[in-house]
Amino acid sequence: KGYQFIAKKDLLRWVIMIFIGIFTALIACCIDIAIEEGSGVKFNFLKKQVDQCVEDGCLSIPFLYWILCNLVPVLIGSLLVVYVEPVAAGSGIPQVKCYLNGVKVPRIVRVKTLIVKAIGVTCSVLGGLAVGKEGPMIHSGAVVAAGLSQGKSTTLRKDFKLFTYFREDHEKRDFVSGGAAAGVAAAFGAPVGGVLFSLEEGASFWNQSLTWRIFFCSLISTFTLNVVLSTYHGRPGELTYSGLLNFGKFDNTSYDFIEIPLFILMGILGGLLGALFNHLNFKLTVFRIRNITKRYVKVLEAVLVSAVTATVGMGMILYTNDCKPLGDDPTKYPVQMYCGDGQYSAIGAIWFQTPEGSHKLTSILMFFAFYFFLSCWTYGLSVSSGLFIPSLLTGAAWGRVVGMGMEYMFPDKSWVNPGKYALIGAAAQLGGVVRMTISLTVILIEATGNLTLGLPLMITLLMAKWVGDYFNEGIYDTHIRLMGVPILEWEPPPLSRNIHATEVMSTPVISFSSVENVGRIIDILTNERYNGFPVVDTPMYNDGRTFGKIRGLILRSQLIVMLQHKLYNETAESWSHKGYTLKLFRDAYPRYPTIQQVHVSDEERHFTVDLRPIMNPSPYSVMHSSTLPRIFKLFRGLGLRHVIVVNDNNEVVGIVTRKDLARYRMEKHMGNMRLSELTILD
Amino acid sequence: KGYQFIAKKDLLRWVIMIFIGIFTALIACCIDIAIEEGSGVKFNFLKKQVDQCVEDGCLSIPFLYWILCNLVPVLIGSLLVVYVEPVAAGSGIPQVKCYLNGVKVPRIVRVKTLIVKAIGVTCSVLGGLAVGKEGPMIHSGAVVAAGLSQGKSTTLRKDFKLFTYFREDHEKRDFVSGGAAAGVAAAFGAPVGGVLFSLEEGASFWNQSLTWRIFFCSLISTFTLNVVLSTYHGRPGELTYSGLLNFGKFDNTSYDFIEIPLFILMGILGGLLGALFNHLNFKLTVFRIRNITKRYVKVLEAVLVSAVTATVGMGMILYTNDCKPLGDDPTKYPVQMYCGDGQYSAIGAIWFQTPEGSHKLTSILMFFAFYFFLSCWTYGLSVSSGLFIPSLLTGAAWGRVVGMGMEYMFPDKSWVNPGKYALIGAAAQLGGVVRMTISLTVILIEATGNLTLGLPLMITLLMAKWVGDYFNEGIYDTHIRLMGVPILEWEPPPLSRNIHATEVMSTPVISFSSVENVGRIIDILTNERYNGFPVVDTPMYNDGRTFGKIRGLILRSQLIVMLQHKLYNETAESWSHKGYTLKLFRDAYPRYPTIQQVHVSDEERHFTVDLRPIMNPSPYSVMHSSTLPRIFKLFRGLGLRHVIVVNDNNEVVGIVTRKDLARYRMEKHMGNMRLSELTILD
Repeated sequence: KGYQFIAKKDLLRWVIMIFIGIFTALIACCIDIAIEEGSGVKFNFLKKQVDQCVEDGCLSIPFLYWILCNLVPVLIGSLLVVYVEPVAAGSGIPQVKCYLNGVKVPRIVRVKTLIVKAIGVTCSVLGGLAVGKEGPMIHSGAVVAAGLSQGKSTTLRKDFKLFTYFREDHEKRDFVSGGAAAGVAAAFGAPVGGVLFSLEEGASFWNQSLTWRIFFCSLISTFTLNVVLSTYHGRPGELTYSGLLNFGKFDNTSYDFIEIPLFILMGILGGLLGALFNHLNFKLTVFRIRNITKRYVKVLEAVLVSAVTATVGMGMILYTNDCKPLGDDPTKYPVQMYCGDGQYSAIGAIWFQTPEGSHKLTSILMFFAFYFFLSCWTYGLSVSSGLFIPSLLTGAAWGRVVGMGMEYMFPDKSWVNPGKYALIGAAAQLGGVVRMTISLTVILIEATGNLTLGLPLMITLLMAKWVGDYFNEGIYDTHIRLMGVPILEWEPPPLSRNIHATEVMSTPVISFSSVENVGRIIDILTNERYNGFPVVDTPMYNDGRTFGKIRGLILRSQLIVMLQHKLYNETAESWSHKGYTLKLFRDAYPRYPTIQQVHVSDEERHFTVDLRPIMNPSPYSVMHSSTLPRIFKLFRGLGLRHVIVVNDNNEVVGIVTRKDLARYRMEKHMGNMRLSELTILD
Repeated sequence: KGYQFIAKKDLLRWVIMIFIGIFTALIACCIDIAIEEGSGVKFNFLKKQVDQCVEDGCLSIPFLYWILCNLVPVLIGSLLVVYVEPVAAGSGIPQVKCYLNGVKVPRIVRVKTLIVKAIGVTCSVLGGLAVGKEGPMIHSGAVVAAGLSQGKSTTLRKDFKLFTYFREDHEKRDFVSGGAAAGVAAAFGAPVGGVLFSLEEGASFWNQSLTWRIFFCSLISTFTLNVVLSTYHGRPGELTYSGLLNFGKFDNTSYDFIEIPLFILMGILGGLLGALFNHLNFKLTVFRIRNITKRYVKVLEAVLVSAVTATVGMGMILYTNDCKPLGDDPTKYPVQMYCGDGQYSAIGAIWFQTPEGSHKLTSILMFFAFYFFLSCWTYGLSVSSGLFIPSLLTGAAWGRVVGMGMEYMFPDKSWVNPGKYALIGAAAQLGGVVRMTISLTVILIEATGNLTLGLPLMITLLMAKWVGDYFNEGIYDTHIRLMGVPILEWEPPPLSRNIHATEVMSTPVISFSSVENVGRIIDILTNERYNGFPVVDTPMYNDGRTFGKIRGLILRSQLIVMLQHKLYNETAESWSHKGYTLKLFRDAYPRYPTIQQVHVSDEERHFTVDLRPIMNPSPYSVMHSSTLPRIFKLFRGLGLRHVIVVNDNNEVVGIVTRKDLARYRMEKHMGNMRLSELTILD
């Protein structure tokens, strides 16, 4: 296996990335087409009912039909999520973020999760919930990438024996980055934004060739989606459907200097609204974790939200009298309702489609208020759902109000374009909620196809993030924190230079000798939950503070695979190294058995096992006097999970894990910053 | 200095980035306007001469004028570069790349360099050399960033006492990344491409907030350039000049599936031509290093190239008879020459402007052949010059030939658009020469403003890089290698897992005790060239293989500043820590005195100095058994310069520097890969 193997492996990485791009886009297309077709059927059915009842004067029947048309899909979606695969709830972005950050979330990249997610998000959108289909795309891409790159699936119980050399954490994570990027590229038609999303959320180390592969994967994904959707819409070869999300045309929209303060103000407003959204959602999620634990209650809540959403929507259409002449309608499905012939209900269009077009101020304000709270209530529900579209709609609504104000104040300025303010408002709202930085800016630039608006978007997002960060964290980080995942920040907390390794580390340390007793290994693995153990020379004297001279580091999974394949011997002397192949570990990856599944006879418990051929003989270690920022940079820069702390004589005195490190984080609250040491419960 | 100071520092980083963006763009505008005005003057003068002589039948006089108009600017430019600041030669991209990679190149970010560069590139372009003004923009941005962020200038002998807390390598490098990105953004109107350029060339660690700041800086730069150039061209507020480089309109250009094989072929051709270009330029540069060492010879060579370029250009205009009717001319300055009234010389337009518009096949082929060799000869000359434009023009020329072929073969296909093939050819040629990856793709996408062409561009660049890499390195890497700079690759060389720290490290190690004798420090600093020294406990016995237990690491610059400020004491006991402030080191940064400039009396040589308050007490260290890939990742991931190698007892056995590591690199030649150990001469 020389350089030729390396070249082959490198080529295969490209080929796999191409397929990840194609399959991610195809899944996005399937979801999109299913929603499109389903909406059409639903709309035509309801329209018939309403048209008939407007004449007959009955009102309750179409209302009941509407409720039903919304309840049934939501019920199906939430049943699937609750009973089949709970990890498919929500947008999946927090989980993908954790995965890319190096924390394993169980079952997150399984095919079963993907299927539930795809059907679930179709149901949620068809059910008229305040959700979008974009977030789940990112998760779908991640699953596709994990499945394709490993050449096997646990859900399908199928091992294709392909790409076995990619079966390790690092390689798999690289492919998942590509899948997430392809998901963003498909959802927003933003290949560069996809790459930046992957980097922003995942990469701690910029790798040139990996980034290029990810970009290729994103481009392939956008291209495939474009080809399929153009063909579906009857215009093959035109390539005009660059993403699922369409902001409309912003080709020649420009802006003026004097608008910049307005963008800053809108950014601040977005930050405030986003912080409010996150605060409410945080309270709600804590309430849900405490009180909504039974499965059927989760389903009931989803159904309740669906009913309320439908009722509010119907109510607004009935009680506002916002009719527009037909013809210049921005929607595909005009709703006549109580409007005269040749007219359609503008508020109905808002509810069925996007709040574009010109509307009455009151309609938009009502839409904004209801949608804000509904989407806040919806996020965290046990259904597959994305947060991008609801945030963008909410923001576009108040952005349009700002636009109306500007038109009123400057009636004859050419740069006053209500669509632009809607876009800025959407960006501000979304930025205030998710607090993404460069990736969100580039996604919005690519989705609008207008580079000139880059600076206004950037300024808005910057203000939204700063203002929002003053109050709380982004919604994804909040949910990650509520999941109890030890995710690391980008930089070590400031002013932590006086915290030393001895304070951060866990001690006492459970360690093994290089030649260890089988019984002891089993006992320790059964009783302790650590994933990494230092291998040491037996210390000459044991004062309980040092644990022998460092020799290496061995992982729980390695020990389990060794025990499982009975790589031990009766006596320590008669040792043979046969059987230690990488293949054993690759075959078991990534779902190693637990220690309970390994059966060792009582006699074998007295055997010995040689850890030296398998352990990592030169693990990263730091001196006990090292500072927190230094350890942090080591973890973040190299993507480590364990660092051994040694004293002057290279004797192990402790071990630092991500969890130890994640305890130290900067609390920012109302402008006060302090370094807090959290207690993370297992 | 609590959290408030941190918040203030963070805000200041943003403010400085804004100014870096503005100033970089202003310099770009100045150069652009100077070239524009200068060209106008030159053109009108020559036109008058030629018009007169076509009537009078004289030919030698305008030819001599032309030569003169080209020679004089080139002479001025090369005199400046050769006698005032030699580091301003070329595009500066290799040097900026080294700087961002963590290697210091002397004088590269000084104001003097910037001035010479700005005047020099204006002269080169006015002198009609086969050069562009884009590469030097990137270097200009880097200088602006370094100057602004440090709040002082050695050239201007002015210390504004501003931003003193940014006076350290790490912070300065962050700002320089921003400056380089702003340079790219200004040159190509590509803010996202600028960020990716900075990341691709410099960052080893992805830092979210830094990247966002860099992006903001790039956006500001594009915006400023746009405002200034729009105003200069008499259309203030229109914001249509997004970059210096203009590819023309590609708004609605699309492509067909069946073109993809053609793009692959064009990519391969670009890779082959690029490899040939780099090979010739490599030979030429080696020849220059060996033979063209005298200053006046360098100036003479520049003048010679200028004369040849002018002659070739004139010759082609005279001997091809490629006349077009006036009116649909793509150039601002039509050249009539021997063409009839109301016509202009197409080949003259090529030479004066870009090879756009429709031309004769022979004109384009001649242009391609001459320009390829001329630009190869020009790069490396002692003038400020960029490589992007000549490569793009060469590629556009043969791309247009491909386009003609396609038009001939498929006369009625709508997607056959000669401009598109010119663009793809330009991309292939440039990609084959510089071998940049994602950043170049995004730069070209942004410069054309057409996201649809992303996939064709990516495929072309991918093939060009792969084919080119089969033969040799990119032109920048070649020049960096010829400069003898120990730059690190992205990844450790493959199959190097059996190389251990003991083979890589330098040994014996020169080390200091924690309390050291002044005389010994001076002797060692005078006789040795190392920049970092381990601080150790005096070993109990010295067997010449270990050098005492590790205590810390101290840098040459720290020692010099300590000696300079006489931070030593007569006896080791009466020690006071007064005077050890960070300020001392910041004030001296970045141009520390040499050890020869530090004067210590004979009596003081017997004094002692305590290194403990200044040294880094927990430097990164690795075990002697660590492998090369592990050490490599530590260097690359954390941007280190020194790693101390210790044995089992934490005793220093060696030290690894970037130079030690850069010796190991993979040689790729004609598809054979091997790991070679280079000898780098000091």
